[in-house]
Amino acid sequence: MSSVIDLLKAHRSIRKFTDQSIDPALFEDLVKSGQAAATSSFLQGSTIVRVSDKEKRSEIAKLSGNQTYVETAAEFMVFCADLKRAGNYCAEYEMPFEGDFTEHFIIATVDVALMAQSMVTAAESVGLGICYIGGIRNNPALVCELLELPRGVYPVFGLCLGYPDQNPEVKPRLPVSVIMKQDVYNEDGDRQAITEYDSLIREYYRTRTGGGHGASWSEQVSSLLSEKSRPHMKDFLAAQGFKFR
Amino acid sequence: MSSVIDLLKAHRSIRKFTDQSIDPALFEDLVKSGQAAATSSFLQGSTIVRVSDKEKRSEIAKLSGNQTYVETAAEFMVFCADLKRAGNYCAEYEMPFEGDFTEHFIIATVDVALMAQSMVTAAESVGLGICYIGGIRNNPALVCELLELPRGVYPVFGLCLGYPDQNPEVKPRLPVSVIMKQDVYNEDGDRQAITEYDSLIREYYRTRTGGGHGASWSEQVSSLLSEKSRPHMKDFLAAQGFKFR
Repeated sequence: MSSVIDLLKAHRSIRKFTDQSIDPALFEDLVKSGQAAATSSFLQGSTIVRVSDKEKRSEIAKLSGNQTYVETAAEFMVFCADLKRAGNYCAEYEMPFEGDFTEHFIIATVDVALMAQSMVTAAESVGLGICYIGGIRNNPALVCELLELPRGVYPVFGLCLGYPDQNPEVKPRLPVSVIMKQDVYNEDGDRQAITEYDSLIREYYRTRTGGGHGASWSEQVSSLLSEKSRPHMKDFLAAQGFKFR
Repeated sequence: MSSVIDLLKAHRSIRKFTDQSIDPALFEDLVKSGQAAATSSFLQGSTIVRVSDKEKRSEIAKLSGNQTYVETAAEFMVFCADLKRAGNYCAEYEMPFEGDFTEHFIIATVDVALMAQSMVTAAESVGLGICYIGGIRNNPALVCELLELPRGVYPVFGLCLGYPDQNPEVKPRLPVSVIMKQDVYNEDGDRQAITEYDSLIREYYRTRTGGGHGASWSEQVSSLLSEKSRPHMKDFLAAQGFKFR
C-alpha cells in the first residue's frame, strides 16, 4: 500500500485552524495540483475565487449557517462552475452559444469537483486540513453578489484551508459491498450491512470527543431526502444561465 | 513540495493499457481511498458498478464512441450518483421522499466526482493509469439497462483503470491568473493570457507523438458550447427520478 493511499484514507474535515498562514508559493502549487486533474472535453470549467476580504468572509460564514471557520481558516475559496470563460469565444468565433444544457451543467460541475479534490489531496499531503462548505448554496445569489459572479458562473461549494488545530477521528464509511456492485446494480445484503453500519455510526458519535447528534447514517440521510432541500437552486441557476435544457 | 504534489501535477489520461490485472486487495484499497473523500451531509451518494462482463464492456465501449480501452483496461467502472440507497429509508421511517430537487442532484453528482478523483489519485500513486469516460452519457438509458440501474441512480461517468502501455505528455493547463480570482470575479488580462495559452496548446498538438487535431483551447471549448450537447440528458434524468425541482 502506498503512503498516498494511507493519506487519502486518513481524510477528515477540519473545522478548527491555527492562525498560521500558507506560503504563497505552496498555495499556488496546490492550485496547480488541482488544475492537473482531468477535465471533460478539455473545458477547464472551474474558477476559484479566493476570498481574503474580511467582510466578505464574514458574510459568507453567516449565510453558510454560521460556520465560523470560513472566517478563521488561512484560506477560503469559492469554487465556481464557469461556462462564461469558454462561452466568450462563441461570440468571438461567431458561433451560437448553446451552453445551457443539462449536460453542460454536469460537465462543469464535475470539473469543479475533480479540481477541488486534487487540490484537497495536495493540501493534506503537506499537513493542511480542509473543510468543504456546501452551505454557500443556502444563499447562492448573495454569494454571486459578494463575489460579482457573472451569468454563466455558479458557486458550487466553498473550501476552507489551513493548518489543523484539532485532530478529529476518521468517520467510518459504508462497507465496500454496499457501494460497489458487480456488473449489475443490486441491493442483495445491503439492508443487513447498513443496519450494522448504522450501529457503528451511532457508536462513533457516542464515543468521540464532543459527542454529536447520535443519529445513525440511515436516519441522517433519509432526513436529508425528506426535505425540500434548497428549493431556490433551480431558479437561481436559471437566472445565472444554467437552464437545464 | 511533496511527492504527492508532483504525482498530481503529472496526471495525464491513459488510453492504452497492458494486460496486467490489478491485485484484488489493492483494488479494494483504491475503492476505500475513494470512499474516504468528503461527502456532503454524510450522504455517501455514490455507487460504483464494476463491469467485468465482456459483452457489457463491449456495448459500453461502442455507445461511448468506440473507446476501445473501455474493453481492454484491467478494470472498468461506472460511477453512479445514487439517491436510492438513502431514499429507501424515507419509506422505512415513514417520511416523505423529496429527493428530486436540483440541490440533491448537485450533492450526489459532486459526491461521485470527489470519490472518483480520490480513487484516481490512489491508483496513480501505485503506477496505474486512468481515463474518465464521459461518453457513457451518449446513451445513458442503455447504460442503465445494461447495468440494471434503478430509479434514483444515474451513471455520471465511466473510469478505465490499468497499467499504462503508453506515456503521453502532460497537457498544459490555463494560467493560474485566469482560473483564480481575488475576492471578485473579473476578466482583466484573461483575453491576452488565453491568446498566449492558445498558442501553447496548438504547439502541444503539433509536437506530440501522433499529432492531434491542432485546435487551440478557445476553439475546442467554444465549439463544445455551440452545440446542443447531449440534449437527451434532461428527459433521461427526469425518467430516472432526477427532476430538477
